[in-house]
Amino acid sequence: MARADELAITPQSQDFSAWYNEIVQKAELADRGPVRGTMVIRPYGYRIWELLQSELDSRIKATGHQNAYFPLFIPEEYLKREAEHVEGFSPELAVVTHAGGKQLEEPLVVRPTSETVIGEMMSNWIDSYRDLPLKLNQWANVVRWEMRPRLFLRTTEFLWQEGHTAHASEKDAREEVMTALDFYREIADEVALLSPVMGEKTPGERFAGALNTYSLEAMMRDGKALQAATSHYLGTNFSKAFNISYQSKEGDLRYCYTTSWGMSTRLIGAIIMSHGDDRGLILPPKLAPYQVVIVPIHKGPDNTQIKQLAEQFSLDLEASGIRTHVDDREYLSPGFKFNSWEQKGVPLRCEFGERDISKGLVTLHNRLTSEKQLVAIDQLSRAVKEGLHRFGADLYKRAREFRLSNTKYVASKEEFFEALQHGFVIAEHCGNKKCEDDIKEISAATPRCIPFDAEETNGKCIMCGEESPYKKPIIFAKAY
Amino acid sequence: MARADELAITPQSQDFSAWYNEIVQKAELADRGPVRGTMVIRPYGYRIWELLQSELDSRIKATGHQNAYFPLFIPEEYLKREAEHVEGFSPELAVVTHAGGKQLEEPLVVRPTSETVIGEMMSNWIDSYRDLPLKLNQWANVVRWEMRPRLFLRTTEFLWQEGHTAHASEKDAREEVMTALDFYREIADEVALLSPVMGEKTPGERFAGALNTYSLEAMMRDGKALQAATSHYLGTNFSKAFNISYQSKEGDLRYCYTTSWGMSTRLIGAIIMSHGDDRGLILPPKLAPYQVVIVPIHKGPDNTQIKQLAEQFSLDLEASGIRTHVDDREYLSPGFKFNSWEQKGVPLRCEFGERDISKGLVTLHNRLTSEKQLVAIDQLSRAVKEGLHRFGADLYKRAREFRLSNTKYVASKEEFFEALQHGFVIAEHCGNKKCEDDIKEISAATPRCIPFDAEETNGKCIMCGEESPYKKPIIFAKAY
Repeated sequence: MARADELAITPQSQDFSAWYNEIVQKAELADRGPVRGTMVIRPYGYRIWELLQSELDSRIKATGHQNAYFPLFIPEEYLKREAEHVEGFSPELAVVTHAGGKQLEEPLVVRPTSETVIGEMMSNWIDSYRDLPLKLNQWANVVRWEMRPRLFLRTTEFLWQEGHTAHASEKDAREEVMTALDFYREIADEVALLSPVMGEKTPGERFAGALNTYSLEAMMRDGKALQAATSHYLGTNFSKAFNISYQSKEGDLRYCYTTSWGMSTRLIGAIIMSHGDDRGLILPPKLAPYQVVIVPIHKGPDNTQIKQLAEQFSLDLEASGIRTHVDDREYLSPGFKFNSWEQKGVPLRCEFGERDISKGLVTLHNRLTSEKQLVAIDQLSRAVKEGLHRFGADLYKRAREFRLSNTKYVASKEEFFEALQHGFVIAEHCGNKKCEDDIKEISAATPRCIPFDAEETNGKCIMCGEESPYKKPIIFAKAY
Repeated sequence: MARADELAITPQSQDFSAWYNEIVQKAELADRGPVRGTMVIRPYGYRIWELLQSELDSRIKATGHQNAYFPLFIPEEYLKREAEHVEGFSPELAVVTHAGGKQLEEPLVVRPTSETVIGEMMSNWIDSYRDLPLKLNQWANVVRWEMRPRLFLRTTEFLWQEGHTAHASEKDAREEVMTALDFYREIADEVALLSPVMGEKTPGERFAGALNTYSLEAMMRDGKALQAATSHYLGTNFSKAFNISYQSKEGDLRYCYTTSWGMSTRLIGAIIMSHGDDRGLILPPKLAPYQVVIVPIHKGPDNTQIKQLAEQFSLDLEASGIRTHVDDREYLSPGFKFNSWEQKGVPLRCEFGERDISKGLVTLHNRLTSEKQLVAIDQLSRAVKEGLHRFGADLYKRAREFRLSNTKYVASKEEFFEALQHGFVIAEHCGNKKCEDDIKEISAATPRCIPFDAEETNGKCIMCGEESPYKKPIIFAKAY
């Protein structure tokens, strides 16, 4: 018989980082791969990714983008064509030097991101204004060598989608950057229920080669920030480096304006740390591999009837679009099953107890509130649907309130460093690199973004008193 | 204005290989990547892959498999643990020797297939008979360095799914091998309409490390074979190499029996070469990115009304589950559009001509038969559905008849080599390596499979007269 201590995890308040590592393993989301820094995404974790992919992919397609696939290997020389790009990515590259039993003439970089190789192909495909806009997306693995790997958050290989588009004008490209940011907001708010802050990155935090980078910053339960997705306006930096040009209606040759944007398996880390508690994961209903788990509970030796009933209701629930699982493992106690599915973050549990069933009732248990509700068995499908809807609304409200109550506007240096211990801090800043570095050295915090929704001000930097170039206070936080 | 010769392609009869290369490029399925042997899958080609993935993934899941993701990089040492496996794959490996700015202590192999790394993880996950069967699948890119690359057929990187399962008994594992082969048959027959032959590979053609390999062999329009998918029984070869063992019900420790099976982007090559003709691609309806293309045709200067009508009917067709596209590009003639969509293999074309429309009619054109049919516009959706159904049935019949009429049973050496010029040859064979090599040297043909449906015989090898170990004639062909 499985023992309860198999499920024991370190409380968040005691050691958040240990809590995270343990829950990733015990909920069977992921494992370390044999090569340092690599990750194995286990079926339960991968199913979350598939559900996320499906939600995001449909939005990407609905806004007129097409999926394609570009090579994993990029000539080393390509990365060097955009000066900032190569500077940003060089320290993280994995390089293939041998293949087919021979040393290669030119080393190949394993893609850390695909602006360069996609830029090269776009330059072949685009001739005329009629070929624009070209709006592509790729689902792929990328490799960035990580010094301090952590599952989902920083792994040498991760899965993501990367959108790459080319436009005839700056205006079109800037609109595209916001379109992408908007479907990321939908995913983060309505699907993952993270309630992140949206805004622009400060110059020091931009993507290597971008003119503007925008991001969604979610708050984890330890008050730290996690960048959930980014969208970049690249201007003509890459189109000049890869000669992505077009003949305009007027007949002259012009450079395209390009964008790129991405969301990765990191988002699963955000979901774990935004919603989880000391009993384990709490999953947003739209991303839960199982939205409800039915546990048949029998006293006597013969459990055939109750198992059949559970199976039958499971099929009914599945038929009405609810992802359902029946846990009929003989060798585990109901109590162990309850704890195990709570640890795995399943929103609702349905207890099929013999005594209740004889009265036409079953018990629904809510993972978030721990409330139990007796439900007429012939109303089960409706009750589960309503339960999931309420669960989602409550979870979003909790994430939003947690972020708001752990975000503080500060006007002085002292308040600033004190507040950084607890969450997001909104403060005026001069934007100078030296001043950003000082803050990082003292507190490990970095500028997260210039939030869209902050009001315009004319304040002075809380560190050095110089004028703020942002004309509004910005958000600082420690970050993953 | 686009010119008709932009669409010109070499006839199949003149140079099948040139025909293939041209159609892949002109139908915008794929392009060569910057690194030799790599492939860019363009949106039109990638959409075919997505439709194929969706068909296959649902069958994989319906038979109780779960998707997961394993690392791209494998320690070089892992491949060496299974002697035949490393021998088979060594010449094709790409190797990462540097990462994060440093030389690595142990070189990393970019996965050519994942038996080894998945074996290692399975050995961590499986303890007891209760953990079996473990049935996993992964959608991923793999790398095999190719000396003679061709788009879709042999590229240094390709996309595929690879199933990997572990079982308590040989019987369970052998059943799994057939389950996988059966959903591949469904995909090949019912979705891709290839009508392949199913059978077992001869010992010399097995997967490196397998005890048995089964395959589907489709016939291309030039009579050559293309292996559409494979399913391998691995016995305990990999479980011994990676210590994948379990405690049985009786309490003793036993090795698992494992399987693996895969289908890749090669299948798109099979579809091109099985169905295409001198005018271009012909796509099976279930895999066609657009099943019908509507071309509005107007005479006068104002085309607003006819375009609006086309849009409206396109929405109706989409709503009834038909993938529809309206080609309303102003700068192309209807004739050019007709040819261009025929080249891209769209099953049905719907011509929205002003004169016909005024009589409540539209024209449906069938890519396979070139038949034109006048259809009442209010019956369009029904006519398209029926048209697609008939199209699929005809296409399958054509592939099947072509294969049967180009497959010959031969009883002599002379007949054998003559018949190999035209298609599949069924003949008795001794199974000796030397004798297989002789055939290959003379004709470039290889044993494709021992077909399931051949009758048992006691014949003698058509080359050397020795007894056949297969107890039935086998199929030889030149192959991609």
